[in-house]
Amino acid sequence: MTDGKIHRVSMKDVVFKADKNNKPVLTIDSSDTVVFECRDAFNQVIKKPEDLPINFDMEKINPATGPVYIRGAEPGDTLEIHILKIDLAEQGSCCIIPNFGFLASEYPEPWTRIIPIKDGFAEFSDKIRIPIDPFPGTIIVAPPEGSHGTLIPKEYGGNMDSKACRAGTTVYLPVFVEGALFGVGDVHAVQGDGEVCGTAVEIDAEVTIKLVVNKKKKIKRPQYENEEYFMTTAWAETTDEAAKIALRDMIHWLVEEKDLTREEAYALCSCTVDIRVSQFVDVTPGVRAVLPKKIFIK
Amino acid sequence: MTDGKIHRVSMKDVVFKADKNNKPVLTIDSSDTVVFECRDAFNQVIKKPEDLPINFDMEKINPATGPVYIRGAEPGDTLEIHILKIDLAEQGSCCIIPNFGFLASEYPEPWTRIIPIKDGFAEFSDKIRIPIDPFPGTIIVAPPEGSHGTLIPKEYGGNMDSKACRAGTTVYLPVFVEGALFGVGDVHAVQGDGEVCGTAVEIDAEVTIKLVVNKKKKIKRPQYENEEYFMTTAWAETTDEAAKIALRDMIHWLVEEKDLTREEAYALCSCTVDIRVSQFVDVTPGVRAVLPKKIFIK
Repeated sequence: MTDGKIHRVSMKDVVFKADKNNKPVLTIDSSDTVVFECRDAFNQVIKKPEDLPINFDMEKINPATGPVYIRGAEPGDTLEIHILKIDLAEQGSCCIIPNFGFLASEYPEPWTRIIPIKDGFAEFSDKIRIPIDPFPGTIIVAPPEGSHGTLIPKEYGGNMDSKACRAGTTVYLPVFVEGALFGVGDVHAVQGDGEVCGTAVEIDAEVTIKLVVNKKKKIKRPQYENEEYFMTTAWAETTDEAAKIALRDMIHWLVEEKDLTREEAYALCSCTVDIRVSQFVDVTPGVRAVLPKKIFIK
Repeated sequence: MTDGKIHRVSMKDVVFKADKNNKPVLTIDSSDTVVFECRDAFNQVIKKPEDLPINFDMEKINPATGPVYIRGAEPGDTLEIHILKIDLAEQGSCCIIPNFGFLASEYPEPWTRIIPIKDGFAEFSDKIRIPIDPFPGTIIVAPPEGSHGTLIPKEYGGNMDSKACRAGTTVYLPVFVEGALFGVGDVHAVQGDGEVCGTAVEIDAEVTIKLVVNKKKKIKRPQYENEEYFMTTAWAETTDEAAKIALRDMIHWLVEEKDLTREEAYALCSCTVDIRVSQFVDVTPGVRAVLPKKIFIK
Protein backbone atom coordinates (compact mmCIF):
# COMPACT_ATOMS: atom_id res chain seq x y z
CA MET A 1 0.00 0.00 0.00
CA THR A 2 2.88 2.39 0.69
CA ASP A 3 5.72 2.65 -1.78
CA GLY A 4 6.98 6.10 -0.77
CA LYS A 5 8.16 7.57 2.50
CA ILE A 6 6.00 7.74 5.61
CA HIS A 7 5.59 11.07 7.39
CA ARG A 8 3.62 12.38 10.36
CA VAL A 9 1.89 15.71 10.97
CA SER A 10 1.09 16.69 14.55
CA MET A 11 -2.34 17.90 15.64
CA LYS A 12 -0.60 21.11 16.67
CA ASP A 13 -0.40 21.93 12.97
CA VAL A 14 -3.90 22.85 11.90
CA VAL A 15 -5.60 25.47 9.75
CA PHE A 16 -9.16 26.78 10.09
CA LYS A 17 -9.18 28.29 6.62
CA ALA A 18 -7.99 26.93 3.30
CA ASP A 19 -5.74 29.48 1.62
CA LYS A 20 -2.96 29.26 -0.96
CA ASN A 21 -0.90 31.51 1.33
CA ASN A 22 -0.99 29.01 4.22
CA LYS A 23 2.55 27.87 4.96
CA PRO A 24 3.04 24.10 4.44
CA VAL A 25 3.90 22.16 7.59
CA LEU A 26 5.38 19.32 5.51
CA THR A 27 6.58 18.85 1.94
CA ILE A 28 6.39 15.37 0.40
CA ASP A 29 6.79 13.55 -2.89
CA SER A 30 3.85 12.09 -4.77
CA SER A 31 3.08 8.57 -3.48
CA ASP A 32 4.35 9.34 0.01
CA THR A 33 2.14 8.46 2.95
CA VAL A 34 1.27 10.78 5.83
CA VAL A 35 -0.16 10.00 9.25
CA PHE A 36 -2.32 13.00 10.13
CA GLU A 37 -3.10 13.57 13.80
CA CYS A 38 -6.54 15.17 13.69
CA ARG A 39 -8.40 17.17 16.32
CA ASP A 40 -12.16 16.70 16.52
CA ALA A 41 -14.41 19.25 14.78
CA PHE A 42 -15.08 21.06 18.07
CA ASN A 43 -11.32 21.77 18.35
CA GLN A 44 -11.26 19.67 21.54
CA VAL A 45 -13.48 21.89 23.70
CA ILE A 46 -16.14 19.19 24.33
CA LYS A 47 -14.66 16.73 26.84
CA LYS A 48 -17.43 15.95 29.34
CA PRO A 49 -21.25 16.03 29.49
CA GLU A 50 -21.25 19.49 31.04
CA ASP A 51 -19.42 20.98 28.03
CA LEU A 52 -22.28 22.45 26.03
CA PRO A 53 -21.88 23.57 22.41
CA ILE A 54 -22.33 27.29 23.05
CA ASN A 55 -20.09 30.32 22.73
CA PHE A 56 -17.82 28.60 20.22
CA ASP A 57 -15.07 30.71 18.75
CA MET A 58 -16.40 30.33 15.19
CA GLU A 59 -12.93 31.13 13.88
CA LYS A 60 -11.69 27.98 15.58
CA ILE A 61 -13.95 25.12 14.59
CA ASN A 62 -13.44 22.29 12.13
CA PRO A 63 -9.63 22.33 12.13
CA ALA A 64 -7.83 20.58 9.26
CA THR A 65 -4.40 19.13 10.00
CA GLY A 66 -1.87 20.42 7.48
CA PRO A 67 -1.40 21.81 4.95
CA VAL A 68 0.93 19.40 3.19
CA TYR A 69 2.70 20.48 0.00
CA ILE A 70 2.96 17.67 -2.57
CA ARG A 71 5.87 18.20 -4.96
CA GLY A 72 4.87 18.23 -8.60
CA ALA A 73 1.16 18.97 -7.99
CA GLU A 74 0.05 21.75 -10.33
CA PRO A 75 -3.23 23.48 -11.09
CA GLY A 76 -5.33 21.22 -13.35
CA ASP A 77 -3.94 18.00 -11.87
CA THR A 78 -5.99 15.66 -9.70
CA LEU A 79 -4.84 14.74 -6.20
CA GLU A 80 -5.53 11.11 -5.30
CA ILE A 81 -6.17 10.83 -1.57
CA HIS A 82 -5.93 7.17 -0.66
CA ILE A 83 -7.45 6.75 2.79
CA LEU A 84 -5.57 3.79 4.24
CA LYS A 85 -6.33 3.70 7.96
CA ILE A 86 -8.22 5.57 10.65
CA ASP A 87 -7.37 5.13 14.34
CA LEU A 88 -9.84 6.67 16.76
CA ALA A 89 -9.35 8.18 20.21
CA GLU A 90 -11.13 6.58 23.17
CA GLN A 91 -14.13 8.89 23.24
CA GLY A 92 -16.08 11.19 20.96
CA SER A 93 -19.07 13.46 21.38
CA CYS A 94 -22.31 14.33 19.66
CA CYS A 95 -23.90 17.75 20.21
CA ILE A 96 -27.03 19.62 19.27
CA ILE A 97 -25.88 23.18 18.53
CA PRO A 98 -28.43 26.03 18.78
CA ASN A 99 -29.34 27.46 15.34
CA PHE A 100 -27.60 24.59 13.54
CA GLY A 101 -28.87 21.29 12.14
CA PHE A 102 -31.64 20.07 9.84
CA LEU A 103 -34.42 20.69 12.43
CA ALA A 104 -32.73 23.73 14.01
CA SER A 105 -35.96 25.59 14.78
CA GLU A 106 -37.33 22.55 16.65
CA TYR A 107 -34.23 22.08 18.81
CA PRO A 108 -33.25 25.48 20.26
CA GLU A 109 -31.37 24.14 23.32
CA PRO A 110 -27.74 22.97 23.42
CA TRP A 111 -27.18 19.30 24.23
CA THR A 112 -24.09 17.13 24.63
CA ARG A 113 -23.54 13.39 24.76
CA ILE A 114 -20.08 11.95 25.43
CA ILE A 115 -19.70 8.68 23.50
CA PRO A 116 -17.00 6.16 24.48
CA ILE A 117 -15.51 3.99 21.73
CA LYS A 118 -15.04 0.38 22.86
CA ASP A 119 -14.43 -2.86 20.97
CA GLY A 120 -15.45 -1.34 17.65
CA PHE A 121 -18.65 0.29 18.92
CA ALA A 122 -19.70 3.84 19.68
CA GLU A 123 -21.50 3.50 23.02
CA PHE A 124 -24.37 5.96 22.62
CA SER A 125 -26.12 4.82 25.81
CA ASP A 126 -26.34 1.73 28.02
CA LYS A 127 -28.99 0.38 25.62
CA ILE A 128 -27.55 1.50 22.28
CA ARG A 129 -24.20 0.79 20.69
CA ILE A 130 -23.40 1.62 17.10
CA PRO A 131 -20.73 -0.23 15.09
CA ILE A 132 -18.06 2.32 14.17
CA ASP A 133 -17.55 3.24 10.50
CA PRO A 134 -15.04 6.08 10.68
CA PHE A 135 -14.11 8.67 8.05
CA PRO A 136 -12.67 12.18 7.94
CA GLY A 137 -15.47 14.70 7.33
CA THR A 138 -13.12 17.39 6.04
CA ILE A 139 -10.73 16.68 3.16
CA ILE A 140 -9.46 19.81 1.46
CA VAL A 141 -6.95 21.47 -0.84
CA ALA A 142 -6.31 25.19 -1.19
CA PRO A 143 -8.77 27.11 -3.38
CA PRO A 144 -7.36 29.18 -6.26
CA GLU A 145 -8.06 32.48 -4.53
CA GLY A 146 -9.03 33.81 -1.14
CA SER A 147 -9.22 32.41 2.36
CA HIS A 148 -12.11 30.00 2.89
CA GLY A 149 -13.37 28.44 6.10
CA THR A 150 -13.34 24.66 6.08
CA LEU A 151 -17.05 24.36 7.00
CA ILE A 152 -18.84 24.68 3.65
CA PRO A 153 -17.97 22.03 1.06
CA LYS A 154 -16.84 23.35 -2.31
CA GLU A 155 -15.11 22.15 -5.48
CA TYR A 156 -11.80 22.09 -3.51
CA GLY A 157 -13.39 19.73 -0.96
CA GLY A 158 -13.82 20.81 2.63
CA ASN A 159 -16.48 19.63 5.04
CA MET A 160 -17.97 16.99 2.73
CA ASP A 161 -19.14 14.82 5.64
CA SER A 162 -19.55 11.82 3.36
CA LYS A 163 -19.25 8.43 4.99
CA ALA A 164 -18.14 7.08 1.60
CA CYS A 165 -14.69 8.48 2.54
CA ARG A 166 -13.93 5.55 4.85
CA ALA A 167 -10.64 3.59 4.75
CA GLY A 168 -10.32 1.87 1.39
CA THR A 169 -11.72 4.81 -0.53
CA THR A 170 -9.72 7.10 -2.79
CA VAL A 171 -10.94 10.69 -2.84
CA TYR A 172 -10.10 12.67 -5.97
CA LEU A 173 -9.76 16.44 -5.53
CA PRO A 174 -8.91 18.92 -8.28
CA VAL A 175 -5.62 20.76 -7.66
CA PHE A 176 -5.87 24.56 -7.82
CA VAL A 177 -2.47 25.72 -6.56
CA GLU A 178 1.10 24.45 -6.75
CA GLY A 179 1.69 21.74 -4.17
CA ALA A 180 -2.10 21.34 -3.66
CA LEU A 181 -1.80 22.25 0.08
CA PHE A 182 -3.73 19.29 1.44
CA GLY A 183 -5.41 19.11 4.84
CA VAL A 184 -7.71 16.68 6.66
CA GLY A 185 -9.77 16.60 9.86
CA ASP A 186 -13.24 16.37 11.39
CA VAL A 187 -13.20 12.61 11.84
CA HIS A 188 -16.55 10.93 12.63
CA ALA A 189 -16.49 7.56 14.37
CA VAL A 190 -19.87 6.92 12.73
CA GLN A 191 -22.50 9.05 10.97
CA GLY A 192 -25.82 8.47 9.28
CA ASP A 193 -26.32 9.78 5.76
CA GLY A 194 -27.76 13.24 6.34
CA GLU A 195 -25.93 14.04 9.61
CA VAL A 196 -29.24 15.51 10.59
CA CYS A 197 -28.51 17.13 13.96
CA GLY A 198 -25.39 18.74 12.50
CA THR A 199 -22.82 16.63 14.32
CA ALA A 200 -22.01 12.92 14.35
CA VAL A 201 -19.67 11.07 16.73
CA GLU A 202 -16.99 13.81 16.59
CA ILE A 203 -13.59 12.49 17.65
CA ASP A 204 -9.83 12.93 17.65
CA ALA A 205 -8.13 10.44 15.34
CA GLU A 206 -5.07 9.54 13.33
CA VAL A 207 -5.74 9.26 9.61
CA THR A 208 -3.18 7.54 7.40
CA ILE A 209 -3.32 8.76 3.82
CA LYS A 210 -1.25 8.15 0.70
CA LEU A 211 -1.18 11.19 -1.58
CA VAL A 212 -0.62 10.73 -5.32
CA VAL A 213 -0.49 13.39 -8.03
CA ASN A 214 -2.44 12.29 -11.11
CA LYS A 215 -1.52 14.32 -14.20
CA LYS A 216 -4.03 12.59 -16.52
CA LYS A 217 -7.34 12.73 -14.67
CA LYS A 218 -9.16 16.05 -15.07
CA ILE A 219 -12.08 16.84 -12.74
CA LYS A 220 -14.08 19.92 -11.83
CA ARG A 221 -15.11 18.78 -8.36
CA PRO A 222 -14.44 15.88 -5.98
CA GLN A 223 -15.07 12.24 -6.85
CA TYR A 224 -14.72 9.09 -4.74
CA GLU A 225 -13.81 5.54 -5.69
CA ASN A 226 -13.21 2.25 -3.94
CA GLU A 227 -13.04 -1.37 -4.97
CA GLU A 228 -16.82 -1.62 -5.39
CA TYR A 229 -18.09 1.83 -6.35
CA PHE A 230 -17.33 4.91 -8.43
CA MET A 231 -18.94 8.06 -7.03
CA THR A 232 -19.53 11.66 -8.07
CA THR A 233 -20.49 14.30 -5.53
CA ALA A 234 -21.88 17.84 -5.50
CA TRP A 235 -23.40 20.58 -3.33
CA ALA A 236 -26.05 23.20 -4.03
CA GLU A 237 -28.73 25.33 -2.40
CA THR A 238 -31.09 22.34 -2.32
CA THR A 239 -30.65 18.58 -2.25
CA ASP A 240 -32.53 18.31 -5.54
CA GLU A 241 -30.15 20.71 -7.29
CA ALA A 242 -27.09 18.99 -5.79
CA ALA A 243 -28.43 15.65 -7.00
CA LYS A 244 -28.78 16.95 -10.55
CA ILE A 245 -25.15 18.12 -10.60
CA ALA A 246 -23.84 14.80 -9.24
CA LEU A 247 -26.04 12.94 -11.73
CA ARG A 248 -24.79 14.99 -14.69
CA ASP A 249 -21.20 14.29 -13.59
CA MET A 250 -21.99 10.57 -13.45
CA ILE A 251 -23.58 10.62 -16.91
CA HIS A 252 -20.53 12.51 -18.23
CA TRP A 253 -18.21 9.89 -16.70
CA LEU A 254 -20.21 7.00 -18.19
CA VAL A 255 -20.15 8.61 -21.64
CA GLU A 256 -16.42 9.41 -21.48
CA GLU A 257 -15.07 6.35 -19.68
CA LYS A 258 -17.54 3.62 -20.62
CA ASP A 259 -18.46 4.73 -24.11
CA LEU A 260 -22.22 4.88 -23.49
CA THR A 261 -24.60 7.20 -25.34
CA ARG A 262 -26.06 10.00 -23.20
CA GLU A 263 -29.41 8.18 -23.21
CA GLU A 264 -27.87 4.87 -22.17
CA ALA A 265 -25.98 6.62 -19.36
CA TYR A 266 -29.12 8.35 -18.04
CA ALA A 267 -31.17 5.15 -18.17
CA LEU A 268 -28.35 3.14 -16.56
CA CYS A 269 -28.23 5.65 -13.69
CA SER A 270 -31.98 5.15 -13.26
CA CYS A 271 -31.53 1.39 -13.08
CA THR A 272 -28.48 1.11 -10.85
CA VAL A 273 -27.01 4.37 -9.48
CA ASP A 274 -28.00 5.28 -5.91
CA ILE A 275 -28.29 9.02 -5.34
CA ARG A 276 -27.40 9.34 -1.67
CA VAL A 277 -27.48 12.31 0.64
CA SER A 278 -24.18 12.83 2.44
CA GLN A 279 -25.32 15.71 4.66
CA PHE A 280 -28.21 18.16 4.94
CA VAL A 281 -26.52 20.53 7.38
CA ASP A 282 -23.32 22.15 6.10
CA VAL A 283 -25.08 25.24 4.65
CA THR A 284 -25.20 23.58 1.22
CA PRO A 285 -26.57 20.01 1.27
CA GLY A 286 -24.30 17.41 -0.29
CA VAL A 287 -25.18 14.43 -2.45
CA ARG A 288 -23.19 11.56 -3.90
CA ALA A 289 -24.11 9.37 -6.87
CA VAL A 290 -22.98 5.78 -6.32
CA LEU A 291 -22.31 3.46 -9.27
CA PRO A 292 -21.56 -0.25 -8.62
CA LYS A 293 -18.52 -1.20 -10.71
CA LYS A 294 -19.45 -4.89 -10.81
CA ILE A 295 -22.11 -4.27 -13.48
CA PHE A 296 -19.42 -3.91 -16.15
CA ILE A 297 -18.51 -7.20 -17.79
CA LYS A 298 -14.73 -7.43 -17.88
CA MET B 1 -44.35 -18.04 6.31
CA THR B 2 -47.99 -18.67 5.37
CA ASP B 3 -50.48 -19.74 7.98
CA GLY B 4 -53.65 -18.73 6.16
CA LYS B 5 -55.12 -19.63 2.79
CA ILE B 6 -53.33 -18.96 -0.49
CA HIS B 7 -55.17 -17.06 -3.23
CA ARG B 8 -54.32 -15.73 -6.69
CA VAL B 9 -55.38 -12.57 -8.50
CA SER B 10 -55.06 -12.47 -12.28
CA MET B 11 -53.37 -9.61 -14.13
CA LYS B 12 -56.71 -9.10 -15.85
CA ASP B 13 -57.93 -7.60 -12.58
CA VAL B 14 -56.28 -4.20 -12.31
CA VAL B 15 -57.23 -0.68 -11.32
CA PHE B 16 -55.65 2.57 -12.50
CA LYS B 17 -57.15 4.61 -9.70
CA ALA B 18 -57.46 3.90 -5.99
CA ASP B 19 -61.04 4.46 -4.88
CA LYS B 20 -63.15 3.14 -2.02
CA ASN B 21 -65.85 2.42 -4.57
CA ASN B 22 -63.67 0.02 -6.56
CA LYS B 23 -65.23 -3.44 -6.47
CA PRO B 24 -63.00 -6.05 -4.75
CA VAL B 25 -61.80 -8.86 -7.01
CA LEU B 26 -61.08 -11.07 -4.00
CA THR B 27 -62.06 -11.14 -0.33
CA ILE B 28 -59.68 -12.75 2.16
CA ASP B 29 -59.10 -13.20 5.87
CA SER B 30 -56.28 -11.49 7.72
CA SER B 31 -53.07 -13.59 7.46
CA ASP B 32 -54.05 -15.04 4.10
CA THR B 33 -51.50 -14.96 1.30
CA VAL B 34 -52.15 -13.74 -2.22
CA VAL B 35 -50.16 -14.26 -5.41
CA PHE B 36 -50.67 -11.09 -7.44
CA GLU B 37 -50.03 -11.29 -11.18
CA CYS B 38 -48.78 -7.79 -12.02
CA ARG B 39 -48.58 -5.99 -15.36
CA ASP B 40 -45.60 -3.70 -15.89
CA ALA B 41 -46.05 0.05 -15.32
CA PHE B 42 -46.43 0.68 -19.07
CA ASN B 43 -49.49 -1.61 -19.04
CA GLN B 44 -47.66 -3.98 -21.40
CA VAL B 45 -47.41 -1.65 -24.41
CA ILE B 46 -43.55 -1.67 -24.55
CA LYS B 47 -42.52 -5.05 -25.98
CA LYS B 48 -39.70 -4.36 -28.46
CA PRO B 49 -37.07 -1.67 -29.12
CA GLU B 50 -39.31 0.08 -31.63
CA ASP B 51 -42.04 0.66 -29.02
CA LEU B 52 -41.34 4.23 -27.96
CA PRO B 53 -42.91 5.75 -24.83
CA ILE B 54 -45.14 8.25 -26.61
CA ASN B 55 -48.87 8.70 -26.96
CA PHE B 56 -49.56 6.77 -23.79
CA ASP B 57 -53.14 6.61 -22.66
CA MET B 58 -52.44 8.40 -19.38
CA GLU B 59 -55.59 6.87 -17.91
CA LYS B 60 -54.01 3.46 -18.38
CA ILE B 61 -50.54 3.53 -16.87
CA ASN B 62 -49.22 2.12 -13.60
CA PRO B 63 -51.89 -0.56 -13.12
CA ALA B 64 -52.29 -2.08 -9.67
CA THR B 65 -53.56 -5.64 -9.45
CA GLY B 66 -56.56 -5.84 -7.14
CA PRO B 67 -58.21 -4.52 -5.11
CA VAL B 68 -58.35 -7.17 -2.42
CA TYR B 69 -60.77 -6.77 0.49
CA ILE B 70 -59.31 -7.96 3.81
CA ARG B 71 -62.03 -8.96 6.29
CA GLY B 72 -61.82 -7.10 9.57
CA ALA B 73 -59.68 -4.21 8.30
CA GLU B 74 -61.18 -0.93 9.51
CA PRO B 75 -60.20 2.72 9.28
CA GLY B 76 -57.46 3.45 11.82
CA ASP B 77 -55.94 -0.04 11.58
CA THR B 78 -52.58 -0.76 10.00
CA LEU B 79 -52.28 -3.22 7.12
CA GLU B 80 -49.12 -5.32 7.27
CA ILE B 81 -48.00 -6.19 3.75
CA HIS B 82 -45.44 -8.98 4.05
CA ILE B 83 -43.64 -9.23 0.72
CA LEU B 84 -42.67 -12.87 0.49
CA LYS B 85 -41.57 -13.54 -3.07
CA ILE B 86 -41.24 -11.82 -6.45
CA ASP B 87 -41.02 -13.82 -9.68
CA LEU B 88 -40.07 -11.84 -12.77
CA ALA B 89 -41.02 -12.27 -16.41
CA GLU B 90 -38.27 -12.93 -18.94
CA GLN B 91 -37.82 -9.37 -20.10
CA GLY B 92 -38.37 -5.81 -18.92
CA SER B 93 -37.85 -2.38 -20.41
CA CYS B 94 -36.42 0.99 -19.46
CA CYS B 95 -37.66 4.11 -21.23
CA ILE B 96 -36.93 7.81 -21.33
CA ILE B 97 -40.33 9.51 -21.57
CA PRO B 98 -40.57 13.04 -22.99
CA ASN B 99 -41.38 15.66 -20.31
CA PHE B 100 -40.81 13.14 -17.52
CA GLY B 101 -37.79 12.37 -15.34
CA PHE B 102 -35.30 14.24 -13.16
CA LEU B 103 -33.46 15.80 -16.15
CA ALA B 104 -36.56 16.07 -18.36
CA SER B 105 -35.53 19.31 -20.07
CA GLU B 106 -32.19 17.78 -21.08
CA TYR B 107 -33.73 14.62 -22.58
CA PRO B 108 -36.62 15.65 -24.87
CA GLU B 109 -36.58 12.53 -27.08
CA PRO B 110 -38.28 9.20 -26.34
CA TRP B 111 -35.95 6.22 -25.91
CA THR B 112 -36.52 2.51 -25.22
CA ARG B 113 -34.25 -0.30 -24.13
CA ILE B 114 -35.55 -3.88 -23.88
CA ILE B 115 -33.75 -5.64 -21.02
CA PRO B 116 -33.73 -9.46 -20.82
CA ILE B 117 -33.61 -11.08 -17.38
CA LYS B 118 -31.22 -14.04 -17.29
CA ASP B 119 -29.62 -15.97 -14.44
CA GLY B 120 -30.42 -13.26 -11.91
CA PHE B 121 -29.16 -10.37 -14.01
CA ALA B 122 -30.85 -7.57 -15.95
CA GLU B 123 -28.91 -7.53 -19.21
CA PHE B 124 -28.70 -3.82 -19.96
CA SER B 125 -26.27 -4.29 -22.87
CA ASP B 126 -23.64 -6.75 -24.05
CA LYS B 127 -21.16 -5.02 -21.72
CA ILE B 128 -23.38 -4.31 -18.72
CA ARG B 129 -25.41 -6.65 -16.55
CA ILE B 130 -27.04 -5.59 -13.32
CA PRO B 131 -27.85 -8.05 -10.50
CA ILE B 132 -31.63 -8.03 -10.06
CA ASP B 133 -33.12 -6.68 -6.81
CA PRO B 134 -36.85 -6.71 -7.52
CA PHE B 135 -39.67 -4.90 -5.72
CA PRO B 136 -43.18 -3.64 -6.48
CA GLY B 137 -43.07 0.14 -7.04
CA THR B 138 -46.76 0.58 -6.33
CA ILE B 139 -48.31 -0.66 -3.08
CA ILE B 140 -51.63 0.94 -2.28
CA VAL B 141 -54.86 0.94 -0.29
CA ALA B 142 -57.98 2.97 -1.00
CA PRO B 143 -57.92 6.61 0.16
CA PRO B 144 -60.74 7.82 2.44
CA GLU B 145 -62.34 9.89 -0.30
CA GLY B 146 -62.14 10.39 -4.03
CA SER B 147 -60.57 8.56 -6.93
CA HIS B 148 -56.80 8.89 -7.06
CA GLY B 149 -54.42 7.82 -9.79
CA THR B 150 -51.75 5.38 -8.62
CA LEU B 151 -48.85 7.53 -9.88
CA ILE B 152 -48.26 10.02 -7.07
CA PRO B 153 -47.34 8.50 -3.68
CA LYS B 154 -49.50 9.58 -0.75
CA GLU B 155 -50.26 8.54 2.81
CA TYR B 156 -52.25 5.58 1.42
CA GLY B 157 -49.16 4.39 -0.47
CA GLY B 158 -49.15 4.31 -4.25
CA ASN B 159 -46.15 4.70 -6.50
CA MET B 160 -43.55 4.77 -3.71
CA ASP B 161 -40.83 3.31 -5.95
CA SER B 162 -38.73 2.38 -2.95
CA LYS B 163 -36.33 -0.49 -3.41
CA ALA B 164 -36.59 -1.09 0.33
CA CYS B 165 -39.85 -2.92 -0.53
CA ARG B 166 -37.99 -6.04 -1.71
CA ALA B 167 -38.94 -9.58 -0.60
CA GLY B 168 -38.37 -9.90 3.15
CA THR B 169 -39.73 -6.43 3.87
CA THR B 170 -43.03 -5.70 5.58
CA VAL B 171 -44.74 -2.52 4.37
CA TYR B 172 -47.14 -0.90 6.85
CA LEU B 173 -49.97 1.14 5.32
CA PRO B 174 -52.68 2.96 7.27
CA VAL B 175 -56.18 1.62 6.55
CA PHE B 176 -58.72 4.28 5.51
CA VAL B 177 -61.73 2.22 4.41
CA GLU B 178 -63.34 -1.04 5.44
CA GLY B 179 -61.50 -3.98 3.90
CA ALA B 180 -58.53 -1.71 3.07
CA LEU B 181 -58.87 -2.48 -0.69
CA PHE B 182 -55.27 -3.42 -1.34
CA GLY B 183 -53.51 -3.38 -4.71
CA VAL B 184 -49.96 -3.88 -5.99
CA GLY B 185 -48.06 -3.45 -9.25
CA ASP B 186 -45.28 -1.59 -11.09
CA VAL B 187 -42.59 -4.17 -10.36
CA HIS B 188 -39.00 -3.13 -11.04
CA ALA B 189 -36.41 -5.85 -11.65
CA VAL B 190 -33.83 -3.38 -10.35
CA GLN B 191 -33.73 0.38 -9.69
CA GLY B 192 -31.23 2.87 -8.34
CA ASP B 193 -32.28 5.13 -5.48
CA GLY B 194 -33.64 8.19 -7.26
CA GLU B 195 -35.03 6.42 -10.36
CA VAL B 196 -33.63 9.40 -12.17
CA CYS B 197 -34.85 8.88 -15.73
CA GLY B 198 -38.35 8.15 -14.42
CA THR B 199 -38.42 4.45 -15.19
CA ALA B 200 -36.35 1.48 -13.98
CA VAL B 201 -36.38 -2.08 -15.36
CA GLU B 202 -40.19 -2.18 -15.70
CA ILE B 203 -41.47 -5.74 -15.87
CA ASP B 204 -44.40 -8.11 -15.50
CA ALA B 205 -44.13 -10.20 -12.34
CA GLU B 206 -45.88 -12.33 -9.77
CA VAL B 207 -45.70 -10.91 -6.26
CA THR B 208 -46.55 -13.14 -3.31
CA ILE B 209 -47.80 -11.17 -0.32
CA LYS B 210 -49.21 -12.07 3.08
CA LEU B 211 -51.73 -9.49 4.33
CA VAL B 212 -52.28 -9.04 8.05
CA VAL B 213 -54.59 -6.61 9.81
CA ASN B 214 -52.85 -5.00 12.79
CA LYS B 215 -55.33 -3.39 15.21
CA LYS B 216 -52.66 -2.03 17.58
CA LYS B 217 -50.22 -0.17 15.38
CA LYS B 218 -51.34 3.36 14.50
CA ILE B 219 -49.57 5.23 11.68
CA LYS B 220 -50.20 8.35 9.64
CA ARG B 221 -48.23 7.28 6.58
CA PRO B 222 -46.35 4.21 5.31
CA GLN B 223 -43.46 2.60 7.15
CA TYR B 224 -41.22 -0.30 6.18
CA GLU B 225 -39.47 -2.92 8.25
CA ASN B 226 -37.33 -5.97 7.68
CA GLU B 227 -35.03 -8.10 9.77
CA GLU B 228 -32.27 -5.49 9.74
CA TYR B 229 -33.96 -2.10 9.45
CA PHE B 230 -36.92 -0.01 10.57
CA MET B 231 -37.85 2.72 8.08
CA THR B 232 -40.11 5.75 7.89
CA THR B 233 -40.98 7.35 4.56
CA ALA B 234 -42.51 10.58 3.27
CA TRP B 235 -43.10 12.75 0.21
CA ALA B 236 -43.21 16.51 -0.29
CA GLU B 237 -42.63 19.26 -2.83
CA THR B 238 -38.87 18.99 -2.30
CA THR B 239 -36.52 16.26 -1.17
CA ASP B 240 -35.44 18.40 1.78
CA GLU B 241 -39.03 18.78 3.01
CA ALA B 242 -39.75 15.08 2.51
CA ALA B 243 -36.61 14.24 4.49
CA LYS B 244 -37.75 16.41 7.40
CA ILE B 245 -41.10 14.60 7.59
CA ALA B 246 -39.49 11.14 7.47
CA LEU B 247 -36.97 12.27 10.10
CA ARG B 248 -39.68 13.61 12.43
CA ASP B 249 -41.53 10.28 12.08
CA MET B 250 -38.33 8.41 12.98
CA ILE B 251 -37.73 10.64 16.02
CA HIS B 252 -41.33 10.07 17.09
CA TRP B 253 -40.91 6.30 16.75
CA LEU B 254 -37.67 6.32 18.77
CA VAL B 255 -39.31 8.36 21.53
CA GLU B 256 -42.44 6.18 21.63
CA GLU B 257 -40.98 2.73 21.04
CA LYS B 258 -37.47 3.01 22.45
CA ASP B 259 -38.06 5.44 25.28
CA LEU B 260 -35.47 8.00 24.15
CA THR B 261 -35.71 11.73 24.87
CA ARG B 262 -36.39 13.89 21.81
CA GLU B 263 -32.77 15.11 21.94
CA GLU B 264 -31.38 11.58 22.16
CA ALA B 265 -33.55 10.52 19.23
CA TYR B 266 -32.43 13.44 17.05
CA ALA B 267 -28.75 12.86 17.87
CA LEU B 268 -29.09 9.11 17.33
CA CYS B 269 -30.57 9.75 13.88
CA SER B 270 -27.55 11.96 13.13
CA CYS B 271 -25.18 9.19 14.16
CA THR B 272 -26.82 6.18 12.53
CA VAL B 273 -29.96 6.79 10.45
CA ASP B 274 -29.45 6.99 6.68
CA ILE B 275 -31.81 9.40 4.97
CA ARG B 276 -32.18 7.88 1.52
CA VAL B 277 -33.92 9.12 -1.57
CA SER B 278 -36.35 6.57 -2.99
CA GLN B 279 -37.26 8.55 -6.11
CA PHE B 280 -36.97 12.07 -7.51
CA VAL B 281 -39.48 11.66 -10.30
CA ASP B 282 -43.03 10.82 -9.17
CA VAL B 283 -44.17 14.46 -8.98
CA THR B 284 -43.39 14.55 -5.25
CA PRO B 285 -39.91 13.21 -4.40
CA GLY B 286 -39.86 10.42 -1.83
CA VAL B 287 -37.42 9.79 0.99
CA ARG B 288 -36.96 7.00 3.51
CA ALA B 289 -35.15 7.15 6.84
CA VAL B 290 -33.35 3.88 7.57
CA LEU B 291 -32.55 2.83 11.15
CA PRO B 292 -30.36 -0.26 11.77
CA LYS B 293 -32.07 -2.39 14.42
CA LYS B 294 -28.84 -4.06 15.52
CA ILE B 295 -27.78 -0.97 17.50
CA PHE B 296 -30.26 -1.84 20.25
CA ILE B 297 -28.78 -4.08 22.92
CA LYS B 298 -31.24 -6.85 23.58
